[in-house]
Amino acid sequence: MTVFDSLVRYGMPLVPKFIVGRVARRYVAGTSRDDAIRMLRSLNQQGAMTTVDVLGEEVSKTELAEDATRQYLELLEALDREGLDRNISVKPTMLGLKIGQDFCAEQVMTIVRRAKELGAFVRIDMEDHTCTDATLDLYRLARQEWEQVGVVLQAYMRRTVADIGGLLELEPNIRICKGIYREPRDVAWPDFDVIRANFVYAVEKLLEGGAYCAIATHDTYLVWAGMQLVDRLGIEPERYEFQMLLGVDPQLRRIIMDSGHRLRVYVPFGRDWYPYSMRRLRENPTVARHVMRAMLGLR
Amino acid sequence: MTVFDSLVRYGMPLVPKFIVGRVARRYVAGTSRDDAIRMLRSLNQQGAMTTVDVLGEEVSKTELAEDATRQYLELLEALDREGLDRNISVKPTMLGLKIGQDFCAEQVMTIVRRAKELGAFVRIDMEDHTCTDATLDLYRLARQEWEQVGVVLQAYMRRTVADIGGLLELEPNIRICKGIYREPRDVAWPDFDVIRANFVYAVEKLLEGGAYCAIATHDTYLVWAGMQLVDRLGIEPERYEFQMLLGVDPQLRRIIMDSGHRLRVYVPFGRDWYPYSMRRLRENPTVARHVMRAMLGLR
Repeated sequence: MTVFDSLVRYGMPLVPKFIVGRVARRYVAGTSRDDAIRMLRSLNQQGAMTTVDVLGEEVSKTELAEDATRQYLELLEALDREGLDRNISVKPTMLGLKIGQDFCAEQVMTIVRRAKELGAFVRIDMEDHTCTDATLDLYRLARQEWEQVGVVLQAYMRRTVADIGGLLELEPNIRICKGIYREPRDVAWPDFDVIRANFVYAVEKLLEGGAYCAIATHDTYLVWAGMQLVDRLGIEPERYEFQMLLGVDPQLRRIIMDSGHRLRVYVPFGRDWYPYSMRRLRENPTVARHVMRAMLGLR
Repeated sequence: MTVFDSLVRYGMPLVPKFIVGRVARRYVAGTSRDDAIRMLRSLNQQGAMTTVDVLGEEVSKTELAEDATRQYLELLEALDREGLDRNISVKPTMLGLKIGQDFCAEQVMTIVRRAKELGAFVRIDMEDHTCTDATLDLYRLARQEWEQVGVVLQAYMRRTVADIGGLLELEPNIRICKGIYREPRDVAWPDFDVIRANFVYAVEKLLEGGAYCAIATHDTYLVWAGMQLVDRLGIEPERYEFQMLLGVDPQLRRIIMDSGHRLRVYVPFGRDWYPYSMRRLRENPTVARHVMRAMLGLR
């Protein structure tokens, strides 16, 4: 294993923060809500749908979770006021999941109720396997209040196919992604080929089961597979969408839209950009190369 | 090709037997029936199903075949007495197939009749392509006597899909594995991807055709594919099982069981452990690395 491999594998503890920041600039809209608004407007004008994420990680203090809730409420107002895509993505641990399930549910429901008043959509993001059950419970709860909510399932999780089976009765809105957290082998398939195959099967099962499916990937094979499935199953354009992260392969984004599919860009913003950026860097060898180049002063 | 590759490819004639023995210890329960009983009890207590194989290869003397038959009869009694999983796997060439088809059929039927009295299951193992027709004939014969018998088809064999078509009317119990003998190209697909794809197709054809299917593999892609097929086709848990060899990837074994699937471990024992262990070594590059390390005195 080279030094470079271990940097990537073990979270690149040696990469100076200012360099991560430089590389992360592409992946994050900025630190303020105004930065996000500008980015959303630009993307909406280009014909892309959007979802906004306030950056932040697990909190252990109630005030921090309540602050995050407040930020999301203000964000919803701003999206409504500015006439932008009213669609947000929230992370349960940032809303206090590790403080307590009931406390977190209060935060989520506060956001969901405001979203309902404004006709906005709320996606509950999925984090590592210690959150899966609780997150699905939150989704079921939110779904009782308002239909414009969705959740996420990860193709690398061994339980995902069974979870789909359990959720289909809700006519759920599911984002399917590969999964990016480091998980033990008994929890997640470690094999690249299996994860891909499971991703395709999950999309097929969702679409055939009447779910709305958000196909979230930058893997061009999976983009193809998604296009093939909606064609083969004759799925209407309003029953699915593709999703991509801000900053990753804007050309592919354009290609998907030009092929007549709906495409949503995941737009994160906020002061807490470091952990998110590190996950992006770990995930993507191309990005990791950028880091190296930056560290070596090549650009 | 390195010396190491040729060792692995051409049967490692240069590997001292004591080293194969050292490596083989994981893959064989021991030399005596008591060793096997201990292993079976431990596995059954862990929630794994089992099948037992008395190690042995092709015989050319009738006394040797009759001795093997006797060993299997005693084994059946022991399983019954000890309250262990009454499930055995037999090799036709060890029961005199190359001496004569009728002679071998007598041996197999002696075992099957005793199994019937004890409510035990008998799997007729598949060997190289010179045995395929005769083995399927033995299976048909045994099936007339007792329904708790099964046979094996190998995904690498070009004839396997046709063989499934011919067997389905029996509502057969089929173990499907990749196949481990060295076969000529006109008999067996040599290509890794083709063997995998043929394996998946065989499982699908068996399950759709109403057969009981034992999915015998350590290839995590194929484990995934099996799980996906039973999910997609809505196959009841008692209509299939996974199978793994003793000593290979116990973590995967646990993962499969914890996911709610039935798992059977193939437990070989006996004095004739050498050829079996050599086939295991050839099959598995990781194992081959163990051999090299043992030869180099690294552990």
